[in-house]
Amino acid sequence: MTQGQTGPVSTSANVLSVDAMGGDKGPATVVAGLAMFLGSTPAARAILHGPAAQLDPLIAHHKIGDRATVHDAPDVVKMSDKPSNVLRHGKKTSMWSAIDAVRDGKAAVCVSCGNTGGLMALSMLRLRKAEGVNRPAIACLWPSRNPAGFNVMLDAGADIRADQDDLLTYALMGASYARNGLDIARPRVGLLNVGTEEHKGRAELKVAHELIARAADKGDFDYVGFVEGGDLPSDKVDVIVTDGFTGNVALKTGEGTATLISELLRGALMKTPLSIFAAILARGSLARLRKRIDPRRVNGGVFLGLNRTVIKSHGSADATGVAAALHLAYRLAQSGFSDKLAARVASAVALAQDQGQDGVADPANNNTGK
Amino acid sequence: MTQGQTGPVSTSANVLSVDAMGGDKGPATVVAGLAMFLGSTPAARAILHGPAAQLDPLIAHHKIGDRATVHDAPDVVKMSDKPSNVLRHGKKTSMWSAIDAVRDGKAAVCVSCGNTGGLMALSMLRLRKAEGVNRPAIACLWPSRNPAGFNVMLDAGADIRADQDDLLTYALMGASYARNGLDIARPRVGLLNVGTEEHKGRAELKVAHELIARAADKGDFDYVGFVEGGDLPSDKVDVIVTDGFTGNVALKTGEGTATLISELLRGALMKTPLSIFAAILARGSLARLRKRIDPRRVNGGVFLGLNRTVIKSHGSADATGVAAALHLAYRLAQSGFSDKLAARVASAVALAQDQGQDGVADPANNNTGK
Repeated sequence: MTQGQTGPVSTSANVLSVDAMGGDKGPATVVAGLAMFLGSTPAARAILHGPAAQLDPLIAHHKIGDRATVHDAPDVVKMSDKPSNVLRHGKKTSMWSAIDAVRDGKAAVCVSCGNTGGLMALSMLRLRKAEGVNRPAIACLWPSRNPAGFNVMLDAGADIRADQDDLLTYALMGASYARNGLDIARPRVGLLNVGTEEHKGRAELKVAHELIARAADKGDFDYVGFVEGGDLPSDKVDVIVTDGFTGNVALKTGEGTATLISELLRGALMKTPLSIFAAILARGSLARLRKRIDPRRVNGGVFLGLNRTVIKSHGSADATGVAAALHLAYRLAQSGFSDKLAARVASAVALAQDQGQDGVADPANNNTGK
Repeated sequence: MTQGQTGPVSTSANVLSVDAMGGDKGPATVVAGLAMFLGSTPAARAILHGPAAQLDPLIAHHKIGDRATVHDAPDVVKMSDKPSNVLRHGKKTSMWSAIDAVRDGKAAVCVSCGNTGGLMALSMLRLRKAEGVNRPAIACLWPSRNPAGFNVMLDAGADIRADQDDLLTYALMGASYARNGLDIARPRVGLLNVGTEEHKGRAELKVAHELIARAADKGDFDYVGFVEGGDLPSDKVDVIVTDGFTGNVALKTGEGTATLISELLRGALMKTPLSIFAAILARGSLARLRKRIDPRRVNGGVFLGLNRTVIKSHGSADATGVAAALHLAYRLAQSGFSDKLAARVASAVALAQDQGQDGVADPANNNTGK
């Protein structure tokens, strides 16, 4: 890591930078989530960004003043704000302040519930893309049949486009995230397509298929080849790579399907006196199931490919959801994830140059040599 | 309809052409499904394609010899056959024979459980694309909160690409299908994207957004604008338009999510004696729920944009699934769907020419004037 604008983080690996504003439920929910997280993680500290007049009483109420400091930031990025506006007029916002605390080395990872487009734009401006990364990506967790309970999917919607080189970078970044975030020593990576046969899919997928296969050994992952939408929750893969358009549609489709089935299940069980009685008897089991697929447990889209790690918590997250995002942030902070990720991508770039891979890649989008 | 190679269908609107081979469960399952369908639809008739030596005893067993005739076809398209091979060497297959019966006006709609790629390739070769259609599409039904219980999504995977003109054609074809297949007089059409704001998404989506909005009045549908993955089961839209890559990933993601949740629910309920007792009490309600989201009920991907209608039944469909596909086929046959669809697309082409829309569209892919 030689980027001039980012300082050392080693002294701040216990500190998270938390944007208190921008979530649908307001700062009280964020501070409640922070209190839950701090309660179960004694070594952790936080810097909380937002209007001090609003935050100080909340900090006092939860009695976390000794471990969370407030950084006053008067403005708030709204859900409706366009990214370009945030970049131009956002200097006094809590989001800007939260990202800058990570940029300046005061904290290791930044967490925000705010506007995704604004958060990504500001993160790219203030933290800059890591060496060798053309398009940063958002990685999300997907409930799965694997022992860890989750698979990683990226890009979940940072960019609507991805060429073959981007998909290779996503494979490397996703594998690194699975190693550090889910403790999977040698993740299995798959490339999302409309079929598993080699002749299927778009041209850039066929090239990416070869690039990723070639990078597997050096990248310490196994490449399982093409996977399909039905494999997102499967136990034959840990990391699923796709472009941000397809990934975003898949993510929202999965969430929408799960919500529909929950509604229908509730409706079915609340229909007759007998089924209501049954539902009461089974409520422990149903609660465990709900917990297993609870979107709050998988809260936290991780921005990969920047010089520091930023986590986007769901805008509608409640205190439990915020706490889950903070736990994930802390885990990544402790593992020194940002630096490991940068090293992985940089070594792959070097390897690709050795192999003269640039001839295969699209020169217009090929930043890998920089 | 002036295409020379397709004859009149009015005399055969009660006749379905059924490919008995190619399903995972063999012809016995297809014939059992046909018997179920014929049992509840007294006016229907069928032509069954496959090796007579295998089919005759099955027909006799189900006592449907008076209403189903066998057309001997010795060869079978296998699931592993490539489309190009099917086109070259498939003349004696049951699939070819089943499509030709529709081509020659002996039956109104063709149903097959066989290999999707082979079925689409053969259908395009033998039935030809309808006037004004550049890329045919596969429309599938999606369990939804709408009164009909289903939404229509297309393209579910006929083609991995779709430009703005294709997406407009999909909107027209999907609306026509919703009218004739689901009895929705004025369907609401949405265009799948990563957000509902006008500035989101790929360039071709923004152009398609305008083209579809302009075609709504003439096409007798309402255009609701961009929708997201989470809206696939929603009641704010009836027809969701997307390219075949995204549609295929979404379809398999939805199916995979539903399967995962069913497994987890079964696991949760089978865990303790109390929960097993509860599951027994609630079995009526759970059976109703299962039926509501039963993939067998939504069996039947409809090929749209050819001069006749072909329905792809799921390869793993059981007799109930095959019967569902046949019921759908019969409904479309009765409504004269093929001709209505062709008229809709042709009138939209005329309208687009009146409006000089060709300037907006990509001339390389613009077949609409032919």
